[in-house]
Amino acid sequence: MIVGVVGLGSMGYGIASSLLRGGHHVYGADVNPAAVARLRAEGAAQDDAIAAASTINALVIVVLNAAQAEDVLFGKNGFVANLSAGSVVILCVTVAPDYARSVAGRCAALGLHFLDAPISGGSVKAAQGKLSVMASGTPEAFDKARGALDAMAETVFELGDSAGAGSAMKAVNQMLAGVHIAAMAEAITFGMTQGIDAETFMKVIPRCAGTSWMLENRGPHIVAGDYTPHSSVDIWPKDLGIVLDAARASKFAAPITAAALQQFLAASGMGLGREDDAAVAKVYARNASLTLPGKSGKS
Amino acid sequence: MIVGVVGLGSMGYGIASSLLRGGHHVYGADVNPAAVARLRAEGAAQDDAIAAASTINALVIVVLNAAQAEDVLFGKNGFVANLSAGSVVILCVTVAPDYARSVAGRCAALGLHFLDAPISGGSVKAAQGKLSVMASGTPEAFDKARGALDAMAETVFELGDSAGAGSAMKAVNQMLAGVHIAAMAEAITFGMTQGIDAETFMKVIPRCAGTSWMLENRGPHIVAGDYTPHSSVDIWPKDLGIVLDAARASKFAAPITAAALQQFLAASGMGLGREDDAAVAKVYARNASLTLPGKSGKS
Repeated sequence: MIVGVVGLGSMGYGIASSLLRGGHHVYGADVNPAAVARLRAEGAAQDDAIAAASTINALVIVVLNAAQAEDVLFGKNGFVANLSAGSVVILCVTVAPDYARSVAGRCAALGLHFLDAPISGGSVKAAQGKLSVMASGTPEAFDKARGALDAMAETVFELGDSAGAGSAMKAVNQMLAGVHIAAMAEAITFGMTQGIDAETFMKVIPRCAGTSWMLENRGPHIVAGDYTPHSSVDIWPKDLGIVLDAARASKFAAPITAAALQQFLAASGMGLGREDDAAVAKVYARNASLTLPGKSGKS
Repeated sequence: MIVGVVGLGSMGYGIASSLLRGGHHVYGADVNPAAVARLRAEGAAQDDAIAAASTINALVIVVLNAAQAEDVLFGKNGFVANLSAGSVVILCVTVAPDYARSVAGRCAALGLHFLDAPISGGSVKAAQGKLSVMASGTPEAFDKARGALDAMAETVFELGDSAGAGSAMKAVNQMLAGVHIAAMAEAITFGMTQGIDAETFMKVIPRCAGTSWMLENRGPHIVAGDYTPHSSVDIWPKDLGIVLDAARASKFAAPITAAALQQFLAASGMGLGREDDAAVAKVYARNASLTLPGKSGKS
């Protein structure tokens, strides 16, 4: 099938590569022409995605946030006005459930199918076509999206026929993931105040009841003192912001998530927004006058 | 060897059983005579532990908290005064690192060895002799304790030759474990406000980056509506209190742990202290007017 991928960052580029490998005819679009050129060199269509929009069967949106999604879909030169009725928009961006419902409604009014389809798994799995997708939408939307999903994802959680459910599940996952990263940072630095170095922490805790997926994934970055961004600090003010906005709208008190958000905001405020999100440990280290492992441990 | 086990609750009883199975001569002691009688029926020594204290090689303390440990070791009719020089006290209670150091010092003054040896793994693993032990103490203390540890534990983390390190690592583990239970409760109930039921949550999240050991262990209790205590709510005000006392003494700000503690305190204040610690979800449910699954979901 003919698939457009809008947003060729590390996730979007990986998805586009997986779609090419899956035998699809792929158009790439990005504000960075170098990313588009690189994808073309790997076999993507040579012409402009927006010019070819009427031929596209499925449009996969992998931009950073709702504002960018709004722009590429409904802005000046947006895709929605150029897609043909019966095609499907697959929104992979982490957005508020209400926003996903809003896009679904506007797509439906134009005869377009819509899949609320946030993704999880990171850039390595994106490039391998092994993402997890938390998807909701009409059976027709799933049907139209199936070929693209098969190439992108190892697991597709089908969460019902209403847009918003996919984004809600993603919000729940991000809530836990963000809390677990910050809690790992809190615990590893607390341990240092009690005479436990980061390396010993990472030898023991992954084998105990205190472990989490994020602890095992991000803890080694702290031990190595390597804050090369796999996923950056600035993801979390955005994603936990989505969670807490939805929580507030539902009159739901989420004190642990709120505390975790403050720590990521402090990391961003310290100028660490583009470092790996494990750098939230530097907030704790600075506050407690600790030196983390590695050259970049001094915050 | 001759081993005394003081405190025959679910953890201590399991340890005593494992020691018996390991071929040791075991004395049991507990304020509840029925527990002592039951252990004797399974092959433990028939006479009083305190009367036989001078023959004991290793004394394993598995009471609830530091106050009880202080009483059984140093109180009226306490064990320490009756043990023979060269024997070892193995303190398995979750206590402040400072308290473990204090016991170590007082034992040393009497010629007794001391192992700071908090345990992890729950009552099932205790009964199987498969606990994890986070242990620190002198090489001589490890040496004297080895036979008992071999029968009790699958994994012994050796954390150095100073008392306090074992308790510090346990505190770090409890910090994470407590935060992860409360975060799971926060996320599962937040999900309910967004239209995701608890069962769907537990189908999806354990396969995503938001998972934790505690989420996978305690989440099913919420789905089943079963709050039979495996580990009770009231453990957490105690254990997170130990963490936050040590943190305060070290001028370490731990906002996420502090937020989690408040939720367990609220659960205890609601009268749920003796329910399974997954009942912290009832705090969130009450605050957000949600009904959790199961008959006991209405808080």
